[in-house]
Amino acid sequence: MQDAHDVVVLRYGHRPGRDDRMTTHVGLTARALGADRVILPDNAGQSAETVRDITDRFGGPFAVELRGDQRSVVRNWDGTVVHLTMYGEPVQSVEEDVRKAHADGPLLVVVGGEKVPWELYEHAAFNVGVTNQPHSEVAGLAVFLDRLFAGAELDREWVDAEQVVVPRAEGKQVVDP
Amino acid sequence: MQDAHDVVVLRYGHRPGRDDRMTTHVGLTARALGADRVILPDNAGQSAETVRDITDRFGGPFAVELRGDQRSVVRNWDGTVVHLTMYGEPVQSVEEDVRKAHADGPLLVVVGGEKVPWELYEHAAFNVGVTNQPHSEVAGLAVFLDRLFAGAELDREWVDAEQVVVPRAEGKQVVDP
Repeated sequence: MQDAHDVVVLRYGHRPGRDDRMTTHVGLTARALGADRVILPDNAGQSAETVRDITDRFGGPFAVELRGDQRSVVRNWDGTVVHLTMYGEPVQSVEEDVRKAHADGPLLVVVGGEKVPWELYEHAAFNVGVTNQPHSEVAGLAVFLDRLFAGAELDREWVDAEQVVVPRAEGKQVVDP
Repeated sequence: MQDAHDVVVLRYGHRPGRDDRMTTHVGLTARALGADRVILPDNAGQSAETVRDITDRFGGPFAVELRGDQRSVVRNWDGTVVHLTMYGEPVQSVEEDVRKAHADGPLLVVVGGEKVPWELYEHAAFNVGVTNQPHSEVAGLAVFLDRLFAGAELDREWVDAEQVVVPRAEGKQVVDP
């Protein structure tokens, strides 16, 4: 978010067709919950298009990048790598340390799709579990980001939106700002 | 969770095939993040099976129910109905009131799939937005539950698990308890 080091979400692995919606939801969740950019595998062009379209309509800044070399993005990351995995350390135990690392430099948050390579566990400074239960990479990413930003992401402002939803106790209201 | 009124997640609407993974992830997220039960549409049998299988292997208690009458579940709910929607009031503004309502009785958390009927907005005591941005019903549910339970769900214990993941800073460890 503004005035802080970048937080970039890397979606690792994507099976076209089968993973389209999950990958799209990873991208949209990254955008909605405070990340600055999402990097999707280069075979996930359809998901990238959807996330860009939402950004055009509902505002940014938020960047979507397609890359074919997930491994080298991780290897060459100039900052801290966080890998979300059900095998990792509890988010509630490490979130303070991750926040400190983010105060010092950019964060790459890796979200697995298909099986991730073993070296990712080694390259990551933090392997983090949002519970050690099998559930959803989208849910894990959401809770992780909400805790990383300590809720501040919920108050962020959006620039260049064509549509703005006005919060309501009942019904729907969308305005053209 | 234990020692509290039930929290039940209702998945509203499901298109077999297209929604299978999202509905499964709603169920798994409900289980992992502290809900007591998930109610899925009766055409989501495959998702129900997956969530039950995970509960058998990784522990409970957690119940999965298939119902064809989503409307009447909402209408006849004896407690508070919360509807998660991007058009609702900010979660950070209403979470305290929702927690108070949950201290008094069971909570039904409705997660939309296909378009939900208008009356749902009226029946819900709270229409809650985890941001007013379009992202993912799974992400919204995850952040909502983590905030409802104020993180206590991350420390819950599981009963009758066949497999237990031991948190690790690196690598994977699964034991047979």
